[in-house]
Amino acid sequence: MNTPAMVTSQTAATLKASLTQGAANVEVMLDRLIPQVTDDSARLIDAMRYATLGGGKRLRAYLVMETATLFNVAPESACRVGASVEMLHAYSLVHDDLPAMDDDDLRRGQPSTHRKFDEATAILAGDALQTLAFEVIADPAMHEDATIRADLVLCLARASGAAGMVGGQMIDMEGEGKSLPLAAVRHLHALKTGCLIRYATEAGAILGKASTVQRDALITYGRDIGAAFQIADDVLDATASAEDLGKTAGKDEASGKSTFVALLGIEGARAEAEALARSAVDALNIFDEKADNLRALARYVIERKN
Amino acid sequence: MNTPAMVTSQTAATLKASLTQGAANVEVMLDRLIPQVTDDSARLIDAMRYATLGGGKRLRAYLVMETATLFNVAPESACRVGASVEMLHAYSLVHDDLPAMDDDDLRRGQPSTHRKFDEATAILAGDALQTLAFEVIADPAMHEDATIRADLVLCLARASGAAGMVGGQMIDMEGEGKSLPLAAVRHLHALKTGCLIRYATEAGAILGKASTVQRDALITYGRDIGAAFQIADDVLDATASAEDLGKTAGKDEASGKSTFVALLGIEGARAEAEALARSAVDALNIFDEKADNLRALARYVIERKN
Repeated sequence: MNTPAMVTSQTAATLKASLTQGAANVEVMLDRLIPQVTDDSARLIDAMRYATLGGGKRLRAYLVMETATLFNVAPESACRVGASVEMLHAYSLVHDDLPAMDDDDLRRGQPSTHRKFDEATAILAGDALQTLAFEVIADPAMHEDATIRADLVLCLARASGAAGMVGGQMIDMEGEGKSLPLAAVRHLHALKTGCLIRYATEAGAILGKASTVQRDALITYGRDIGAAFQIADDVLDATASAEDLGKTAGKDEASGKSTFVALLGIEGARAEAEALARSAVDALNIFDEKADNLRALARYVIERKN
Repeated sequence: MNTPAMVTSQTAATLKASLTQGAANVEVMLDRLIPQVTDDSARLIDAMRYATLGGGKRLRAYLVMETATLFNVAPESACRVGASVEMLHAYSLVHDDLPAMDDDDLRRGQPSTHRKFDEATAILAGDALQTLAFEVIADPAMHEDATIRADLVLCLARASGAAGMVGGQMIDMEGEGKSLPLAAVRHLHALKTGCLIRYATEAGAILGKASTVQRDALITYGRDIGAAFQIADDVLDATASAEDLGKTAGKDEASGKSTFVALLGIEGARAEAEALARSAVDALNIFDEKADNLRALARYVIERKN
């Protein structure tokens, strides 16, 4: 009875349960770590909580927690680091949605932060969420080992600054309305979304005091599923129904964006995502069955329906 | 011949030379630490450099370097930390000047960053400057001791986030056009400008592995000169000529801002700044003549003409 197909469907079910549990744990941690509302900070804190709490896939946090599991890291530490990377991600979405940037009124079907509050509050809430992300990982409450704390701060800063996420957002802004060649699109996404996803997998290695070989393997895994995730996003946008997506489908084509689908075609994009997912799984060969959720995640990332 | 008056004027001259040298050292360090322009990041890096380089008093950096001197900290380490706090300060100015915030077209007589570039670039340059400030102090090149690196990150984050600088800016935005009571104005400035100045003096103590007594003394010194600095600013705005200030004088009164001068009168505000400067100097009693520049700085802060 134990056919490969059944194993796969069982693995998928295990992953799904694990993802749901991980997201729930991170939600509780975010609620604990973001300050509660006090008299003189009500609006700022409200906006920070609005922008961060309330769900989402929590893919980045899950990657931190699941890679940390490989090294038996204390779940509390891993969950704090996971919450921190979600704060960083949330800040970037708040600022990306601003009128001067992508000018988006909606985020996950809800008013974006500057629409729910106002522009000044959204700018400041994003600023304070970035600060809080660094505060959480520098705090001895996250981990007693200062080398780990400082290394996490350094890697998060490198992944999210001018040479990483913010640099990618800048290239995206500058490329608006232009048709970019494939290499430029790859580079843009490697910075804009790839660096932070790769950091999430590296963070588990840092927490676990992994060997260089192990750390490099997780960096490769993170880099490849980050790229696969973005390509799968483009394919979904071009093929899924609005109902499945929970947002307008076909938005990329309508806005004349340079996507992987536009450059490679749907089948070409699917093939590249497939190759990246395989490469991500290969990078995990040095780990035992503890990495099975990460292996299943590589498939999930390219096969998800939303 | 060695009258008190002459000692004072000699001390003032020493301080002035030390301030000038400190600012020059930080300028060189900032130039080294902010990435150079590359093909795909030209505009973002240009904006980061524009917002940060090109002078200013560098009071915060000077406080880091001068407090670090008390403990014989390597000047390279102290200068890096000083540069980092100036990056953090620069990011806050870039975001404060945005149209949705204070909507200022000029900064130090030059176009503010969003006027020189554009709003999106200014938002992203501010974001990346905040990130870089944390990167610089988490980097082993700053100091080999990870405990010091992590502690600096934690204290900088606490000073500049929702419970510090950004929280103060939020209160300032919400208080616009309202007349605030004295306690609220004190609280606003303690957060908006005080926390970062206090961090600068604490940073020297962290770098120097100071005792709790020494660290507390420097925190008190930083808190008091931070408050004195802000009150002196209000007095200058009400009394100095535009020529001395290098900006429009009387701007606070015209905009109906709740200032210390409006609440205490010019003489009352001067008396409070004087008392704070004295209290700051008193806090330094446990240090020897190595702290003379810091003592002179407390006077300079309330007697400066711009």
